[in-house]
Amino acid sequence: MTESTTTVLVTGAAGFIGSHIVRGILEDKRYEDFKIIAFDDLSGGFKDNLPVHERVSFIHGDVSNVDDVAGLFSNQQIRYVFHLAAYAAEGLSHFIRRFNYRNNLIGSVNLINESVNAGVQHFVFTSSIAVYGKGQVPMTEATNPHPEDPYGIAKLAVELDLKSAADMFGLKSTVFRPHNVYGEYQNIGDRYRNVVGIFINRMMQGLPLPVFGDGSQQRAFTYIADIITPMLSAPFIKEAEGEVFNIGASAPVSVRELANVVAQEFKGKPDIEFLPARNEVHLAYSDHSKADRVFGKSEETPLVIGIRQMADWAKQAGDRTSATFENIEIDQGLPPSWRSHHGK
Amino acid sequence: MTESTTTVLVTGAAGFIGSHIVRGILEDKRYEDFKIIAFDDLSGGFKDNLPVHERVSFIHGDVSNVDDVAGLFSNQQIRYVFHLAAYAAEGLSHFIRRFNYRNNLIGSVNLINESVNAGVQHFVFTSSIAVYGKGQVPMTEATNPHPEDPYGIAKLAVELDLKSAADMFGLKSTVFRPHNVYGEYQNIGDRYRNVVGIFINRMMQGLPLPVFGDGSQQRAFTYIADIITPMLSAPFIKEAEGEVFNIGASAPVSVRELANVVAQEFKGKPDIEFLPARNEVHLAYSDHSKADRVFGKSEETPLVIGIRQMADWAKQAGDRTSATFENIEIDQGLPPSWRSHHGK
Ligand SMILES: NC(=O)c1ccc[n+]([C@@H]2O[C@H](COP(=O)([O-])OP(=O)(O)OC[C@H]3O[C@@H](n4cnc5c(N)ncnc54)[C@H](O)[C@@H]3O)[C@@H](O)[C@H]2O)c1
Ligand SMILES: NC(=O)c1ccc[n+]([C@@H]2O[C@H](COP(=O)([O-])OP(=O)(O)OC[C@H]3O[C@@H](n4cnc5c(N)ncnc54)[C@H](O)[C@@H]3O)[C@@H](O)[C@H]2O)c1
Repeated sequence: MTESTTTVLVTGAAGFIGSHIVRGILEDKRYEDFKIIAFDDLSGGFKDNLPVHERVSFIHGDVSNVDDVAGLFSNQQIRYVFHLAAYAAEGLSHFIRRFNYRNNLIGSVNLINESVNAGVQHFVFTSSIAVYGKGQVPMTEATNPHPEDPYGIAKLAVELDLKSAADMFGLKSTVFRPHNVYGEYQNIGDRYRNVVGIFINRMMQGLPLPVFGDGSQQRAFTYIADIITPMLSAPFIKEAEGEVFNIGASAPVSVRELANVVAQEFKGKPDIEFLPARNEVHLAYSDHSKADRVFGKSEETPLVIGIRQMADWAKQAGDRTSATFENIEIDQGLPPSWRSHHGK
Repeated sequence: MTESTTTVLVTGAAGFIGSHIVRGILEDKRYEDFKIIAFDDLSGGFKDNLPVHERVSFIHGDVSNVDDVAGLFSNQQIRYVFHLAAYAAEGLSHFIRRFNYRNNLIGSVNLINESVNAGVQHFVFTSSIAVYGKGQVPMTEATNPHPEDPYGIAKLAVELDLKSAADMFGLKSTVFRPHNVYGEYQNIGDRYRNVVGIFINRMMQGLPLPVFGDGSQQRAFTYIADIITPMLSAPFIKEAEGEVFNIGASAPVSVRELANVVAQEFKGKPDIEFLPARNEVHLAYSDHSKADRVFGKSEETPLVIGIRQMADWAKQAGDRTSATFENIEIDQGLPPSWRSHHGK
């Protein structure tokens, strides 16, 4: 085994989950001989999220650009791929369909092609519970997927493509479907997603918390630390090969209750701005018994603790200006709060 | 109703099924006030397949090119879309994954975007039984799709995206899953697909008929005329809105038997060249009772009759040189008979 083969590629490494994967690899004995290529186009991530470390090299590039991906693989001998690069704004994906499929599906397929050609030993992919669609609660991996938005459809297509690449070319992979992850290093300046980040950002800016509908919609919010260990274990556990796993917290909490928990960290009562309900899944929580069986039961950080840690980080890091996604493809039905301030 | 709104867009119009749709529209009373935009990039079709007619305008363009599609919709007021443009080489799709998703999925999404924005009244899409995957026989629309190759995965993603666009934006659509269609105007020079066309072409060239495996794999071969009427009816039948339909022949026939039927038309016994089996579905035939219920039972042209008509056309049109697909992305496991003659 030559040194050059002990390389892990992490795409989306400058993002929220990706940067935790990088830090996790650095601390994990099983990876102690590995160097890490941290690949990201910085469209939604920040170089500062990455630790400065001799084992970590940052490469700026776009997974949906075939030359960037081909260049990456021709210069490196990569053994494991953790593919996290994606634009994960589920609700917005209706309005940016082409961008969604290009970035999240074609980007993944470029990596799958190169991984087959380079003989990568294991490919770990973060899918999403968006593949399930509405009304399948609790969601279990045995349930047939019925994604209802372009984001979920692209994730399902990548899952299926990985399965096909395994059957056809022997590419080993593991798919994780995390949900509603929050924590330090999350981009709290993306107005289109991550309700926890949005709430924290707005509290720091002294602004009201935007809630779609009456805020009774429920999610099981997952603290980031709780999902990293199973993901890092996937290449080393035989039973994880070719399998799909739900991972994340179990207890559903309403968006209104979340607003209260966040406000408490800032010693306030939340000032809520109610917005028209949007087309979203009302109640989403998933069954994790399969992951518990294969990876061992992982601890679940209570919401108040996780939010405290994230809020502490955010207070240090400071609030972020919310950027506007500029290239809306379909304008019809776009929530007014998502429109560009420049009056597109 | 102004003249400009009575336009039908047919993509892939210079192809096999597309050119029959164009001819079908010209002969159909329900469309007598409509003009037809025949859109095609001629990557797999031929302008000669199209009738020369004052109601038909040919536009050269690529559905996967956003500017081509946007240009099309900004110059025309389109009421109905028949979207057939795709590269339909299912077996080859394993080796051209990126091209497959770009051409067949992104191309479709460009059209869906523009159809939403332009207020198109009905969108008819040709999917495929490839969405079902192996071992689901007979395939019924109620079966959960499990596509196993990139071609089928892209088709399923388009189906799901259309459903999502209907729920979100009210875009009306109908999906057809035809299978193993053959007949006049089929490209008999594509070595990667259309076993009927390949056999006819090879017989005319005095070459042996290539068969993967032992030729016992079965398909229900569908004569083109038998699927055009239901497709043209979709925009006019309320029960077809938002629905998926299998269409095609019912009786499965083995590839070896097909070879005999084709050879008979050329007064010969088939000389068969057996090739290594490839990763393909062994037995594929589908249930059409849903289409029969909604569109009325369509007549089924017997194989010997359909093959005779196609062979008669082919004898006039002449044989075609088999082109090689140049941009193979994954070389591993590519059947030797599919390799470029230039020794790629
Ligand atoms: N956060 C969640 O709750 C959650 C839940 C389910 C799945 N996921 C998935 O996990 C992954 C990471 O999500 P996250 O929450 O860390 O989001 P994130 O935005 O913080 O991280 C994604 C990173 O990918 C990068 N990126 C985006 N497009 C890229 C491209 N074309 N080329 C290179 N880099 C690109 C961004 O710059 C960003 O740094 C995504 O695939 C997401 O779909 C996240
Ligand atoms: N023939 C079958 O048995 C069968 C079965 C199921 C589904 N289908 C589907 O029916 C449709 C038509 O298939 P066909 O058998 O007539 O194949 P075909 O190759 O004869 O027709 C496809 C046409 O689309 C054109 N095209 C391809 N990519 C294009 C692009 N990017 N932009 C513009 N034009 C493009 C080609 O030039 C060709 O004329 C396809 O969507 C195919 O997947 C066919």
